[in-house]
Amino acid sequence: MSSTANRQIVLRRRPETTVTDDCFQLIEAPLREPSPGEVQVRTLWLSFDPAQRGWLNDVPSYVPPVELGAPMRSYGIGEVLASSHPSFDRGDLVYGFVGWQDYAVGDPGPDGLALDVLPADLSDPKLALGPMGMTGLTAYFGMCEIGRVGPGDVVLVTAAAGATGSVAGQIARLRGAHKVVGTAGSDDKRRWVVDVAGFDSCVDHYEGHLFRRLGQPAPDGYDVVFDNVGGELLDAALGNVALHGRIALCGSISTGYRPGRPEVGLRNYQLLTTRRARMEGFLVSDFNDRFAEARAALHGWIAAGHVRTAEDVVEGLEHAPATLRRLFDGRNLGKQILHVADQS
Amino acid sequence: MSSTANRQIVLRRRPETTVTDDCFQLIEAPLREPSPGEVQVRTLWLSFDPAQRGWLNDVPSYVPPVELGAPMRSYGIGEVLASSHPSFDRGDLVYGFVGWQDYAVGDPGPDGLALDVLPADLSDPKLALGPMGMTGLTAYFGMCEIGRVGPGDVVLVTAAAGATGSVAGQIARLRGAHKVVGTAGSDDKRRWVVDVAGFDSCVDHYEGHLFRRLGQPAPDGYDVVFDNVGGELLDAALGNVALHGRIALCGSISTGYRPGRPEVGLRNYQLLTTRRARMEGFLVSDFNDRFAEARAALHGWIAAGHVRTAEDVVEGLEHAPATLRRLFDGRNLGKQILHVADQS
Repeated sequence: MSSTANRQIVLRRRPETTVTDDCFQLIEAPLREPSPGEVQVRTLWLSFDPAQRGWLNDVPSYVPPVELGAPMRSYGIGEVLASSHPSFDRGDLVYGFVGWQDYAVGDPGPDGLALDVLPADLSDPKLALGPMGMTGLTAYFGMCEIGRVGPGDVVLVTAAAGATGSVAGQIARLRGAHKVVGTAGSDDKRRWVVDVAGFDSCVDHYEGHLFRRLGQPAPDGYDVVFDNVGGELLDAALGNVALHGRIALCGSISTGYRPGRPEVGLRNYQLLTTRRARMEGFLVSDFNDRFAEARAALHGWIAAGHVRTAEDVVEGLEHAPATLRRLFDGRNLGKQILHVADQS
Repeated sequence: MSSTANRQIVLRRRPETTVTDDCFQLIEAPLREPSPGEVQVRTLWLSFDPAQRGWLNDVPSYVPPVELGAPMRSYGIGEVLASSHPSFDRGDLVYGFVGWQDYAVGDPGPDGLALDVLPADLSDPKLALGPMGMTGLTAYFGMCEIGRVGPGDVVLVTAAAGATGSVAGQIARLRGAHKVVGTAGSDDKRRWVVDVAGFDSCVDHYEGHLFRRLGQPAPDGYDVVFDNVGGELLDAALGNVALHGRIALCGSISTGYRPGRPEVGLRNYQLLTTRRARMEGFLVSDFNDRFAEARAALHGWIAAGHVRTAEDVVEGLEHAPATLRRLFDGRNLGKQILHVADQS
């Protein structure tokens, strides 16, 4: 019996700026059987997240950089093909750090593949990558705990057509926000943000005069800003912060997550003092012990139709590098996903 | 009987950048008697505070701008010469918004001169302008409530030889900080910060390589940053923030409080996310209802010698504009005060 090949997309060199195809290499490794305590998983769907770009930089951060020669680190959904671990059975649908490869073999624990069995009652397993997964949880904790959104708040969400921003704005509404304004980069996206995700309005974040245009829908400023973008857009949002406003920093895709400092600095920081406002960063992993609470809330809202989401699906493992690039080119509407294989 | 003249220094034109002498004009107005409900106060000491520069800009902020032709708004200590208000008696020492003038006449209430009678047990009335006044209260609430300093914290205080910074660092130590680092701009100041105010070390904030030099005394970063300076120094401090660090923004003297946005933006803001840190501005007036608590603590610390302070005293009302400029030239060590008249 010939051994099965495991296609893996490994990191060949670290990108300095943009992620180009030659940063990665597709190799074929022999598929190995799980050792005791390990599982063997077939990758079905891969999740694409801006934070992945940061993991390619050789700098100390909240997770170690992806090693040269190793498969690219990626969240995803898989199917257990073989298990010698008591918590997993053949056929289980799982999600965790499967990586850019056809098969992941390893320790399913938190220091390994960090796998969990998918909740059985999900109407669509892919929800576990978007609104029920890291992006939804990020939206939940960022909006509720860092932004502390409440009744009557005027809220701004940047990159509102993205997987995180779209959910963040809808959570703000569910928590009683008076007005929810988004930003997005194309007509299609802005229409979706208003018509489907139910934001009050959506501002084009590629046009000029950002400070003035963000200010128009919020003459008294924004009580909560949920920012994914950074740079000029964040600075313009900061310039429109309300008295005692809260700015939740979730990421900064405008910087491309390149190594080194971004070119555009924040110049409106003095308003934090005169308006007694706060700017605070967070990572969803800080709220690990509350994921069950958040997932239950998100599941309820999605099932009831209160949180609407979009998926942007690309086909084929070999397109993973180009799919990651879509995030930084602002091409995805909703959660960027790649389909690798079907469930058996 | 000839009427007494009241010298007033009034705002003639708003400064665009630096405060020059010709922005103000010394005039002599006749001294009027207090109407019912008013008091007449002789100015003894004036307080100089960076925030005063901001009050000269014709922009909406937390207080209205000083009006053209009006005496410059200023905190100070005075002696009640005549009173037709039940809470004040002739001879009382008071502090509040006496302004740049020999005599203040008006409503002593919070919307007028905002006068309070000086506590009788102060060893030196001037303490009411510095460590027991706005600068001490700012240090107290900024360090305790915004910085939330606690045992074991590594703390950075910029402009540590100033009236606010020097007290902020000493409060950090009293609250159990493990290490307190300051910044200051001259050898004399840095010596004072370490030898008298008891900081562990003090960094020259005019030399280059700020990011690296601020990082040396704090290899794991700063848990608390108390910033008065803004600009490049704040950006370098932000680059050295610790995991879950708190940056209290008290002001930004490096910007000169000129109208418009500062030239230097903050480029290290992404660290707020990866280190889950917070940057928050505040005004001491937000804590009005807790001033008694703070003054009692400050009084006890000063009396016991746990908080040491310095005063920088200039003589003569006519030098008020030049005295304000001293703050922005970094010439004051400790609280900048001007002596106008002696108590009768």
